[in-house]
Amino acid sequence: MKVYAFGVDIGGTSVKIGLGRTSGWLFETRKIGTPPAPSPESFLAQIADVIKQRIQARGFRAADVLGIGVGVPGPVDAQGMVHGCANLGWGDVDVKAILEQHLQMPVQVGNDADVAALGEMWQGGGKGFSNLVMITLGTGIGGGVIINQHVVPGRFGSAGEIGHLHVDGQEREPCNCGNFGCLEQYASATGIVRTAKTLLAGHPEVASVLKNAGSFDAKAVCDAAREGDALANAALGQSMEKLGQALAMISCVVDPDAYVIGGGVSAAADVFMPPLKQAYRHYAFPASKDTVFTQATLGNQAGIIGGIKLIMSKESKEK
Amino acid sequence: MKVYAFGVDIGGTSVKIGLGRTSGWLFETRKIGTPPAPSPESFLAQIADVIKQRIQARGFRAADVLGIGVGVPGPVDAQGMVHGCANLGWGDVDVKAILEQHLQMPVQVGNDADVAALGEMWQGGGKGFSNLVMITLGTGIGGGVIINQHVVPGRFGSAGEIGHLHVDGQEREPCNCGNFGCLEQYASATGIVRTAKTLLAGHPEVASVLKNAGSFDAKAVCDAAREGDALANAALGQSMEKLGQALAMISCVVDPDAYVIGGGVSAAADVFMPPLKQAYRHYAFPASKDTVFTQATLGNQAGIIGGIKLIMSKESKEK
Repeated sequence: MKVYAFGVDIGGTSVKIGLGRTSGWLFETRKIGTPPAPSPESFLAQIADVIKQRIQARGFRAADVLGIGVGVPGPVDAQGMVHGCANLGWGDVDVKAILEQHLQMPVQVGNDADVAALGEMWQGGGKGFSNLVMITLGTGIGGGVIINQHVVPGRFGSAGEIGHLHVDGQEREPCNCGNFGCLEQYASATGIVRTAKTLLAGHPEVASVLKNAGSFDAKAVCDAAREGDALANAALGQSMEKLGQALAMISCVVDPDAYVIGGGVSAAADVFMPPLKQAYRHYAFPASKDTVFTQATLGNQAGIIGGIKLIMSKESKEK
Repeated sequence: MKVYAFGVDIGGTSVKIGLGRTSGWLFETRKIGTPPAPSPESFLAQIADVIKQRIQARGFRAADVLGIGVGVPGPVDAQGMVHGCANLGWGDVDVKAILEQHLQMPVQVGNDADVAALGEMWQGGGKGFSNLVMITLGTGIGGGVIINQHVVPGRFGSAGEIGHLHVDGQEREPCNCGNFGCLEQYASATGIVRTAKTLLAGHPEVASVLKNAGSFDAKAVCDAAREGDALANAALGQSMEKLGQALAMISCVVDPDAYVIGGGVSAAADVFMPPLKQAYRHYAFPASKDTVFTQATLGNQAGIIGGIKLIMSKESKEK
């Protein structure tokens, strides 16, 4: 019985390799550092070696292991081809083929945000929902769209790129993607700080703890908002207005059961959820105003847990 | 062998009932008028009677007919429950249960725009694509989202409500849905006319054939644009700017293989496609700039052909 599976989460600074049962029990996690600009072949061979070593150490036979689900930090098309990972310095890499050749077992590859969304659906904040959109609020904004319990990768691997929804026609500064007025410019951790700085600069007469903070992060804005700082609340309100508007648009496209909010900023859900839900309800199509909002619960294990689910979904689909 | 299936397209003025083979060959279409404010029970009984009569006239046995796929002009949830059809004066109606009781064969129900999208995917402008978004430009804007060859209905039946994507933060007039700045206010047939009228009113100095036209429709705007009328071209450009912006956002959510444009306005694709594609490329996430744009080809048969595909998809899914 193939009751074991590996979930691999490849990131810019480290790779996490999780081993679990298909029942959902994750019982082992290994971490290896990502070398700077790793060559795909040697780096994937190194990951394969760890997996082989763990299979041997545990005394598994090939017949015990379902396969490996892998999340990578870049766009992955429906065929599993990885089209460039900026953080790794990779161009097109056939991660699936390379790992399958090393390991002689099924490998499934997805975008890391998509795989994390799958993990949250299976074992985390999205448990019980078959259709959800996960939003990861970090330095940027990542997203994953799950329909019928499966990741939607998109033609060019860009499904779930919700950080790049156009939410402001007046923006003069370009987003990292080159466009103007992307959601990520306002509602990511960076965007929340930027919004607060713009408000501070425009309202020198308003007292705020942020004024004397020099450099501050999104957590500082959320903390100040929690303490009743008017400027911090206004900044968070503006950021969540944009996010609510964007999620209302996503509901007009896929109308998910739930939005699962994760990433570093999500720890401050107590302060951002109320303005976010209010903005969502304001902009949402009348029929979709009651979509559920939840918090991600798996933290940085979402990727490896999602990896296990990814290979399970793939194998059950092909049977 | 169950090689026959019915596709039923329930509209505000008429019901089309198509009979075809599961190979895709539609060989018979019947049309009955929709009475004003029909009671769901008696009206669906009338539709069932036509189907029974056609089965009998053709000499089919129950074992020959796969079932019936039905499109209705209102939101349908994932369980097939219809939640209100404004044009029919219906509240919640279990169309599937009522028809199945009459006909004793499988019935599958979907939103009419979703079912039309499925038809276009199977036999029309979207043939060959498994992931597409259909946009119907008519009095309003309808939409259907197909992922992995299946309709995405949405939690509240609102997936594909792309006419209500928020594309303008400055709008002062409400949309029919009660919100402000919905795509439909600019890029539907009505929206194109409205855009042209606003430009005419704001630029009395500009010569335009539309100026003396009194009341005009979207076709007149497209015709004038084709003849080189500067104001008509500017109006169409503004409308397509909003539509391109909206489709670029849809690509950030589901990144489809193709956009299939249908509805009355789509006959003027020669004049609106160039500005639409230009606006799309301008706003699209860099990876998704080359999404395919096609025209719908099935016209008002898309609903019945999609109905046949709907019941085929359902039956193959359950096997």
